[in-house]
Amino acid sequence: MIKEIGIPKGTRDFLPEKTLKRNYIFSVIRKVFELHGFLPLETPAMENLNVLTGKYGEEGDRLIFKILNSGDYMKETGLDTTKKITSDILTGKICEKALRYDLTVPFARLVTMHQNEIFFPFKRYQIQPVWRADKPQKGRYREFVQCDADVIGSDGLLNEAELIQIIAEVFYQLGIDVTVKLNNRKILAGIAGMLQAQEYFTVMTTALDKLEKKGKAKVIEEMLQKGFPEDAAKKLEQIIAQTGEGNALLDILEEKMENSEPGASGIKEMRALFDYIAMMKLKLDLKFDITLARGLNYYTGTIVEVSTTDVNIGSLCGGGRYDDLTGVFGLNNVSGVGISFGADRIYDVLETLNKFPENIKAVSEVIIINFGEKEMPYAFAFLNRLRAVDIKAEVYPDPAKIKKQMNYANRKQIPFVILLGSEEIKQNEVTIKEMKTGKQVTFSTEKAIDYIKNAKKDM
Amino acid sequence: MIKEIGIPKGTRDFLPEKTLKRNYIFSVIRKVFELHGFLPLETPAMENLNVLTGKYGEEGDRLIFKILNSGDYMKETGLDTTKKITSDILTGKICEKALRYDLTVPFARLVTMHQNEIFFPFKRYQIQPVWRADKPQKGRYREFVQCDADVIGSDGLLNEAELIQIIAEVFYQLGIDVTVKLNNRKILAGIAGMLQAQEYFTVMTTALDKLEKKGKAKVIEEMLQKGFPEDAAKKLEQIIAQTGEGNALLDILEEKMENSEPGASGIKEMRALFDYIAMMKLKLDLKFDITLARGLNYYTGTIVEVSTTDVNIGSLCGGGRYDDLTGVFGLNNVSGVGISFGADRIYDVLETLNKFPENIKAVSEVIIINFGEKEMPYAFAFLNRLRAVDIKAEVYPDPAKIKKQMNYANRKQIPFVILLGSEEIKQNEVTIKEMKTGKQVTFSTEKAIDYIKNAKKDM
Repeated sequence: MIKEIGIPKGTRDFLPEKTLKRNYIFSVIRKVFELHGFLPLETPAMENLNVLTGKYGEEGDRLIFKILNSGDYMKETGLDTTKKITSDILTGKICEKALRYDLTVPFARLVTMHQNEIFFPFKRYQIQPVWRADKPQKGRYREFVQCDADVIGSDGLLNEAELIQIIAEVFYQLGIDVTVKLNNRKILAGIAGMLQAQEYFTVMTTALDKLEKKGKAKVIEEMLQKGFPEDAAKKLEQIIAQTGEGNALLDILEEKMENSEPGASGIKEMRALFDYIAMMKLKLDLKFDITLARGLNYYTGTIVEVSTTDVNIGSLCGGGRYDDLTGVFGLNNVSGVGISFGADRIYDVLETLNKFPENIKAVSEVIIINFGEKEMPYAFAFLNRLRAVDIKAEVYPDPAKIKKQMNYANRKQIPFVILLGSEEIKQNEVTIKEMKTGKQVTFSTEKAIDYIKNAKKDM
Repeated sequence: MIKEIGIPKGTRDFLPEKTLKRNYIFSVIRKVFELHGFLPLETPAMENLNVLTGKYGEEGDRLIFKILNSGDYMKETGLDTTKKITSDILTGKICEKALRYDLTVPFARLVTMHQNEIFFPFKRYQIQPVWRADKPQKGRYREFVQCDADVIGSDGLLNEAELIQIIAEVFYQLGIDVTVKLNNRKILAGIAGMLQAQEYFTVMTTALDKLEKKGKAKVIEEMLQKGFPEDAAKKLEQIIAQTGEGNALLDILEEKMENSEPGASGIKEMRALFDYIAMMKLKLDLKFDITLARGLNYYTGTIVEVSTTDVNIGSLCGGGRYDDLTGVFGLNNVSGVGISFGADRIYDVLETLNKFPENIKAVSEVIIINFGEKEMPYAFAFLNRLRAVDIKAEVYPDPAKIKKQMNYANRKQIPFVILLGSEEIKQNEVTIKEMKTGKQVTFSTEKAIDYIKNAKKDM
């Protein structure tokens, strides 16, 4: 016997109620994706380690879960085990596989491998778990499900607009009020250029990404530590203090960045995107935020992040355009743009706000009391008829005391209990007990099915 | 750039067509489970290694994928790295977690941990991937999805009967002709007793499990090698040669095993199960097979295995009763019974027999041709109206050449192409081109939606 059983930290068991609620979230997102012409696909949980490393920055690499090679893996390393062996030396030699860290990189790998089987623009969605060896905390798990939609092979900003429309529809249907922040990495590149700090572009974006969490002072401090020039940092402070509505702010920036090619191009893209969104007549709290940076380095154009002010839990959805992602796998000049919904945080938000619909159930609608073997053939026949009209139904598996069986029906919240005893069998009838009201009625089997079907509609 | 990209052997990418077909299988199975009152749950992909080891036999333990600890895991081992380090010594010290090998053991772990949150009998289903470091071959993958239904906390044979009914319904709905083999591990124990070879019970069942694959001679040889007495082996050969219809064969065995307590009890259970199945009036090719053994050692009563004669691919579904499974985790006296459908093999069978329904699609029903930015507001408005009535619709993301856009519609098999150019906009009309016939009609926007809705019904 194992004395202490548990599950790995940062992971979770989902009992039926939670599973059904999670499935509700997935089904809302899936339906919106499909209504917009996205097709599903799936990749394996494991990828070859070399597919994943180097794609998520140094910090990301450390958070990838590696899978130990099978068999006598130490022998295969060919290492001189009489010498000191460190983790750094060992990992690459005893692990060839790893769990996927996100859905985007495996998708880029898939597009490259299957480029001749798919046709572009390729609109796909993918709802699968990912794993990160992150420190678990509120809203952050080591296993969580991402729900991604990406368009690959088209650089039109209409794709960005459509993804923002999808964001609007998903959160509208879920009943969560959100704020959508938009920016463009080219504008950030323009700012870095303006400050003559192009070579510190990644330092700047990586630090800016933490602005909301850590505050301005810490962000500037981090940048200075990593060599960002002091005068540039001062100017940056002024720039990120700029606020204003979308187009007005773009006007200010445009003037300042007129000599920066990426900056001007980023501003043009933002304007075009705002135009599309205006045409779509979205009801959405949309903000152009020049401090939005997104940590992942593969983004090259539009970036987006969604949060709710109702619950303090971080971003619920994020994404952006990446121009070179398949390039590392050998497929060049394919631009992509995508978003990713964090279903687990959305779950926490809906739970906190008590906004799950009430009718999320997959529980039996009917249970037949087990009186014993003699009555069983009639029970089976009635069950078959119920299931044939899509009524979920079961019979209690043992001829236990009626009270115990009733108690089971109660706890499982099964609304109708059927009594099909020797008297009912003789008359070709069944007795229905409605658990909510306690009301008991006897019908012919035919009528009983109609009765349950109708009552079910009203629930 | 990575020169050779690929995925780990034994794993697969699923492009949209395959994903949709797999989802069809899951949805058939899920629906039958729910109609029988089973509730969904999910467990994490990773379990603590000590939860999994020792549950699947020595061979199983080797096939568990282990996950490398994070951080400087070598330092944590406290090993003297100047001495020879072998895989055997190392694994337990650098891996605390592993990928689940099946759904049954994690379920038993969950039931034990959450015993106060659930109520018995607990009927749950679970559809999730499992991972095994097995040698990949036809119908055997390193990542595959299991679809399990279990009832825990009830020892009534009605549960077994219901699971067999579920098997019948699932394969009927999928259109696969199957043979269901039944046996009872107590009968096998009775046989071992009859042969005075009780202590070789596991040797016998492990070997018998390979009877179909390897043939009688090899099975007997394996048993003898592992110490099974020669005279007992001879008698066993005679017994497994026995054939006959269910009850007749039970009669023969009953006489021979009258002194064996487990044997008699197993026979009684088989009779009761056959009675229930007869009451259910299942149309199913059902065979009592005394050579059916099931490799997994945790089975203690009824065992079942499903295969099809149409494709040579091994078992499509299997299961049985286990009386002690939660016992290893500290929860005693809870009996369970379950079945597991192998969705990946079922996929291969349906593909081989060409039996997937034709209407498995999630593709857009409508695509609007992109004429440019001026027409876009009208396109967006029309798209919204289509989606509001559940019509999947998209607009081509760039104002590319019409031919290119048509080609995309064609390859994606989108049935309706909408032309919404300046002329149509002026008249508040849209032109619909049916891709199958080439027919082109112009309607008011209102009528166009009705037209597509009706045409969709006929597809």
